Amino acid sequence: MVRKVSIFGSTGSIGRSAIDVICNANETGAAEFSVEALAAGRDVEGLASQALKLKPKIAVIADESRKVELAALLAGSGIEVAAGEGALNEAAARPCDRVLAAIVGAAGLGSTLAAIKAGNDIAIANKESIVCGGQLMLGEARQSGARIFPVDSEHSAIFQCIGDGRSLENLTITASGGPFRNWSLEQMATATPAQAAAHPVWSMGIKNSIDSASLMNKALEFIEAAVLFDVAADHINVLVHPQSIIHGMAHFDDGSVIAQLGCPDMRTPISYALGWPDRIPTTVDRLNLAQISNLEFFEVDEERFASIRLAREAMGAGPAARVVLNCANEAAVSAFIAGECGFLDISRLVEAALERFSSGNFASSKCETLEEIAEISRYGRFLVSQWLNNAPSRAGG
Amino acid sequence: MVRKVSIFGSTGSIGRSAIDVICNANETGAAEFSVEALAAGRDVEGLASQALKLKPKIAVIADESRKVELAALLAGSGIEVAAGEGALNEAAARPCDRVLAAIVGAAGLGSTLAAIKAGNDIAIANKESIVCGGQLMLGEARQSGARIFPVDSEHSAIFQCIGDGRSLENLTITASGGPFRNWSLEQMATATPAQAAAHPVWSMGIKNSIDSASLMNKALEFIEAAVLFDVAADHINVLVHPQSIIHGMAHFDDGSVIAQLGCPDMRTPISYALGWPDRIPTTVDRLNLAQISNLEFFEVDEERFASIRLAREAMGAGPAARVVLNCANEAAVSAFIAGECGFLDISRLVEAALERFSSGNFASSKCETLEEIAEISRYGRFLVSQWLNNAPSRAGG
Repeated sequence: MVRKVSIFGSTGSIGRSAIDVICNANETGAAEFSVEALAAGRDVEGLASQALKLKPKIAVIADESRKVELAALLAGSGIEVAAGEGALNEAAARPCDRVLAAIVGAAGLGSTLAAIKAGNDIAIANKESIVCGGQLMLGEARQSGARIFPVDSEHSAIFQCIGDGRSLENLTITASGGPFRNWSLEQMATATPAQAAAHPVWSMGIKNSIDSASLMNKALEFIEAAVLFDVAADHINVLVHPQSIIHGMAHFDDGSVIAQLGCPDMRTPISYALGWPDRIPTTVDRLNLAQISNLEFFEVDEERFASIRLAREAMGAGPAARVVLNCANEAAVSAFIAGECGFLDISRLVEAALERFSSGNFASSKCETLEEIAEISRYGRFLVSQWLNNAPSRAGG
Repeated sequence: MVRKVSIFGSTGSIGRSAIDVICNANETGAAEFSVEALAAGRDVEGLASQALKLKPKIAVIADESRKVELAALLAGSGIEVAAGEGALNEAAARPCDRVLAAIVGAAGLGSTLAAIKAGNDIAIANKESIVCGGQLMLGEARQSGARIFPVDSEHSAIFQCIGDGRSLENLTITASGGPFRNWSLEQMATATPAQAAAHPVWSMGIKNSIDSASLMNKALEFIEAAVLFDVAADHINVLVHPQSIIHGMAHFDDGSVIAQLGCPDMRTPISYALGWPDRIPTTVDRLNLAQISNLEFFEVDEERFASIRLAREAMGAGPAARVVLNCANEAAVSAFIAGECGFLDISRLVEAALERFSSGNFASSKCETLEEIAEISRYGRFLVSQWLNNAPSRAGG
């Protein structure tokens, strides 16, 4: 059986790991994958090199200005070349067994929705699109029959543990705690982007790494879990677990807890989302608990890490608040990377945006269309940029 | 839906926990249980008191000399009273949804087989009967359609984690390490039965507690796992885990490990075995990993604990060797409790019995009948008693 997959965000960290899983399976004969579409944002050389290796039907670059370059690199390969948002959506809708949605940030939502509308099963690595457009995606999926398989290690863990969801009491997602787990507020106030991006366990892109340092990554995953598994926010726990061996747990009403463990390596959840209901063998290091010897667990320190509290508040405030949370965070992280604000300002800016939003016109929006989501996203980003431009002591505490 | 259960070994530690699960479910309305048969070995007062509370159709005491006493205690209750092995077997064969087989030691095998032959699904807490008669039980179960649900926490864990068994690489069962985990060989040599029975985590009967101190409990569970899940012995790991929070794990070929966790409380696996495919809500303490804070894992020290090695050897030597291992251990533990040998002599006696057996007439026995198993059991016990009677420096090292 050939498994036909499309990879959106192929040159990012998740996309590259997925290609590793696919190539390994094809080479060892553990499974047989063919690639329908590869899509990337701007990295035209990376995309071309992947395309020459994997021979997809089509390669799409989101940045239209790079189409000519891509076409030149793939000249004579027989691979179709396209660019821009419309091309992304068209490629996502092409029939395949699984579309890996791994474009980072809210930018991934359009092609993911296009894939879902076409009835393609999704392996979803883009937590922002679930946070912003989860209800929309799930609604479209119900109509088209598309299934949504989580790729985030925590949600993959829960998906592997939750069974049919009967008798479920609670869910737990774990957090490594990030590079600032043991930093004081004073130290965090002067943290640099390079320090924030130095993740102790997981290897990932810069935006996700910084989100991991602020625990905003976990806050988004908290919302993702509530949406994907349809579980109330007060039945979802975040547990700091520096070794990142237990990824997620389902707690049942007989006192039993089912957990998924593994060495921190995204190839395991990626292969599960691509292969379900089968497991695709990987070359991931096997877990040896005697060697690791010690697993630690802590409550989240909400004094130093405001993100989980903000996510809980956003969950209570409805779908539009989640969009604001996510987009204000995207804007604040960009500003932090650009040196325009400090590390602790990220959550302050998000909190301020949520506060302003709650008294504004958008507060009751149901986020039922892509346009509505885009408008609220712009509003969230606008609030942040306004503060950054106008106030040297912005988001004033 | 009323769940009709029979409990064999009702006055022991597992039996009492099962009754707690049943009463709690009935009282809270979480599930509805009725009891068909209660059976105990010698504790006639305990059995009578349980019977008056649970109103089974029949109460059976294995020790025939106590029948009159039981009849007197249950006079006027309308509960049928019976005694002896034949009555145990007859009661086990009465139709019900689940027979909890919780009689300790090889003595439990007869009634368990009778229940299986009658097509009753079994919740099996008696690891000795699987070690001695596993092939026989599974063969009869295939014929009658009876299903066998594990009650041992480790095997319940694996049963909850293994899925359909595809893509499985390995199984892990955990061991608390028992009260002598950090004792030297010199200290263990002079250990008393009271010290051996002082289990740090699990509360259980004396025989199982002493088996836990010698890790023979884990050795029997190792064999039980191989037999119940049909997994080769070299794909089963034993991991020392003093907190006893992770009970068992299934390792898959994509690097994923599914584990079952919970506070150490037998009511969780008992309720799972009685309720499957449903979970029966229990009042077991809920797991709080942040509170526990730390889970430790170690390899088994086979220098100090020979049991796992002996189990591996017995697995290699075939079904009759497992019977010898189990029965020699039963005899040696009895001798230890009676002060007739030291703690370290237990595994020495078992090893000596296995050695003698391997060169004897029974070595190639397939253990295909209850009689054959009984004969080999007697032989294993005879070897131990012979050494104990004849040699002051028995099992001579």
